[in-house]
Amino acid sequence: MRYINFEFIILKMRILITGFTGFVSEYFLEYLNTVEKNCEVLGLARTHPSFDVSNFDNLKIKFHKIDLLNKQEVENIIQNFKPSYILHLASVSSVAQSWLTPYDSFVNNTNIFLNIIEQIRVSKLQCRILSVGSSEEYGEVAEHQLPLTEDSKIVALSPYAVARISQEMLSKIYADGYNMDIVMTRSFNHIGARQKDKFVISSFAKQLVQLSKTSSTRKKITTGNLNIVRDFLDVRDVVKAYYLLLKKGTKGEVYNICSGKGTLLKDIIQTMSSTLDLEIEVELNPTLVRPNENKKIIGSYNKINSHLGWEPTVTIENSLKSIIEYWQDKLA
Amino acid sequence: MRYINFEFIILKMRILITGFTGFVSEYFLEYLNTVEKNCEVLGLARTHPSFDVSNFDNLKIKFHKIDLLNKQEVENIIQNFKPSYILHLASVSSVAQSWLTPYDSFVNNTNIFLNIIEQIRVSKLQCRILSVGSSEEYGEVAEHQLPLTEDSKIVALSPYAVARISQEMLSKIYADGYNMDIVMTRSFNHIGARQKDKFVISSFAKQLVQLSKTSSTRKKITTGNLNIVRDFLDVRDVVKAYYLLLKKGTKGEVYNICSGKGTLLKDIIQTMSSTLDLEIEVELNPTLVRPNENKKIIGSYNKINSHLGWEPTVTIENSLKSIIEYWQDKLA
Repeated sequence: MRYINFEFIILKMRILITGFTGFVSEYFLEYLNTVEKNCEVLGLARTHPSFDVSNFDNLKIKFHKIDLLNKQEVENIIQNFKPSYILHLASVSSVAQSWLTPYDSFVNNTNIFLNIIEQIRVSKLQCRILSVGSSEEYGEVAEHQLPLTEDSKIVALSPYAVARISQEMLSKIYADGYNMDIVMTRSFNHIGARQKDKFVISSFAKQLVQLSKTSSTRKKITTGNLNIVRDFLDVRDVVKAYYLLLKKGTKGEVYNICSGKGTLLKDIIQTMSSTLDLEIEVELNPTLVRPNENKKIIGSYNKINSHLGWEPTVTIENSLKSIIEYWQDKLA
Repeated sequence: MRYINFEFIILKMRILITGFTGFVSEYFLEYLNTVEKNCEVLGLARTHPSFDVSNFDNLKIKFHKIDLLNKQEVENIIQNFKPSYILHLASVSSVAQSWLTPYDSFVNNTNIFLNIIEQIRVSKLQCRILSVGSSEEYGEVAEHQLPLTEDSKIVALSPYAVARISQEMLSKIYADGYNMDIVMTRSFNHIGARQKDKFVISSFAKQLVQLSKTSSTRKKITTGNLNIVRDFLDVRDVVKAYYLLLKKGTKGEVYNICSGKGTLLKDIIQTMSSTLDLEIEVELNPTLVRPNENKKIIGSYNKINSHLGWEPTVTIENSLKSIIEYWQDKLA
C-alpha cells in the first residue's frame, strides 16, 4: 500500500510594483482590487505613496522605500518577497528633464531595470516581468509611417529614448537568451485624473479650471505648440492592458499601448474650454516648444488586440471630463 | 599708444587613454610616439600596464589605476588632467563572457563610457572623444547584406552587443544634442602579436607553435567552428585609424574599422600550419561553437577611406607571421 501526499498549493499572485507612488500605480491597484482576490503586493518607490494602501480590500499591500539603483537592496527585496509578477513602472519619464540630466535619466531608467532583471536571473525565480517602455522609442516619425506598429523603425532622439531603447534591448536579450519571462510595452501618452500637472493635458485642465474661477475678462492660457497630434490613452485602459500582458502576454514580445487615435492638442483645449463654458486666449510660450518635435504621432494597438482582445474603452471626452472634475475638486 | 599682449599658446595634445593596459593601447602608444612630439598621455586602467611607459621618447606618460565605474574618481581625473583628446578603449569585450556576466558587461561598457562623457559635458571641456564600438552591433547578417556599411541594420544578439549599441546611442545624443565632439567606430576583429590567447587567432597560433615544438606524431589542435568567415584587421592599422579619427574624424559620425576582406578561419589555420611546416589534425570542441553564429562577416571601410584616406596596409599573411613570431619568442 502506498500513501500519496497531495499538496494543495494555492497559487497566490505575489506582485512587485516599482514606481509605486506614481499615477499609473494607483489606478493599477484599483483595477487589481476588482479582478484579484488574495493578492500580495509589495510596492517600491523612493517616496511614500500619497494614497491609502488600506483602501484595497482584496489586496494585501506592503510598501518599501528604496532607491532601485542600490543593487544590494534590490537583491534583498527580491529574495525576501519572491515575486511571481513584477510590474516595472519606475521611471524618470520626462523627455525635457532627460535633456537637463541625461545621466540620471539613463541610470534611473536602464540601470534600475537591469538591477531587477539581473536579480531575477541569478536567483532563478519564476517571475513574469512587464517592462514598460515608451512611444518615444520611435523617434522621428513621418506621416506616411502612421499608425506606428511594433515593427516601425526605432531611433533615439533624446536621452530618455536612449534609456528606453536600452531597456527594451536588455529585456529582449534576457527573454530570448536566458529564457526569462519578460513582456515589453511601448506605451503612448497616458491621461487621467490625478496626473501631475507637469504633463500637458493635466496642465491645460488645471489652468482652465483656475480661469473658470476668476472674474477676469481676459482669460489667457500659456501653452507650447498646439498644432501637434498625439495618441492619448486613458490611464484606466492602460492599467487593464498591463494586467492582461502580465497574465497573458507572450514572452519576449513588445506591445504598443495606445488609443489608435490622433487628437490635436488645440482640439483638446477647445473641448475642455467648452465643458467649462470658457472663452480663452492662447499664448505660446516658446520655452515649451520642443525642437524637432514630431507633428503627428499615432500608434496601432492591433497586436495586443489580436493577441489578447484588448481595446480602449474610455473615450477622450470621458477622459477629459474626469480630468476637469479632478481639478475642480482639487482646486475647490 | 596701445600695448598688445601676444600670448603664445602651445597646443599640446593631452590625451586620456582608457583600457590603457590592453593590447590596442600599447600599439597606439607606439604609433603616437612616431607621429607626435611633446604629447602628454594619461593612461587609465584597473591594472598596471605590463609594458614600460618610459619606452616612448616623445610621450610624457602617466598612469592612474582606476575603476571607471567610480563616477567621483572619473570626475577628479578629468578635472585634474583636462584632456584635449580621449581614446576610450576600456571594455569587457568578450561576447561569450557577456553571456556569463551580462550585468558586468553592460555597466563596464555602457556606464563607464557614460561616466566619462557626462563629466566632459558638465565641465564644458573642449575635448575630442573616440568611442570605440564593435561589429557585433550588426547582429545577424545575411550574405546578401555584405559588405556591412555604417547604414546596415543594427540588432543586438548578445548582452555585449546591447552594451555597445547603448554606448553608440549615447554618443550620438551627446554629439548631436549637446554639440559634444564625439566620433564613433564599429571595429571589426583585431589581430596582432601580443594579443591574449582568449582571442581566436592568437589561440590558434599559440597551439600551433606549441605543437611545432613537440615530437609527438599526432598533432592535434582544438577549435570551434572553422567554416566561418571574419574580417580581420591588423592592430597596427587599427591604431592608425583611431589616430586619424581623433585628429580628423567628423563629429557625430560612426566609422567601420575593418579590412574589407573576409578570411575563412580554416584558411588561417592552413596558412599558419604551412609557415610552421606542420601537419595537423583539427578537433572540434563543441563548447567553443557559438549558437546562431554568423557564417560570414565582412565590413566596408569605404566611409573612412573617402573621408580620411585611411586604408589597411598590413596583409593578413604579414599579420599571421608576426603573431607566430610572437608566440615562438614567448614560448622559447
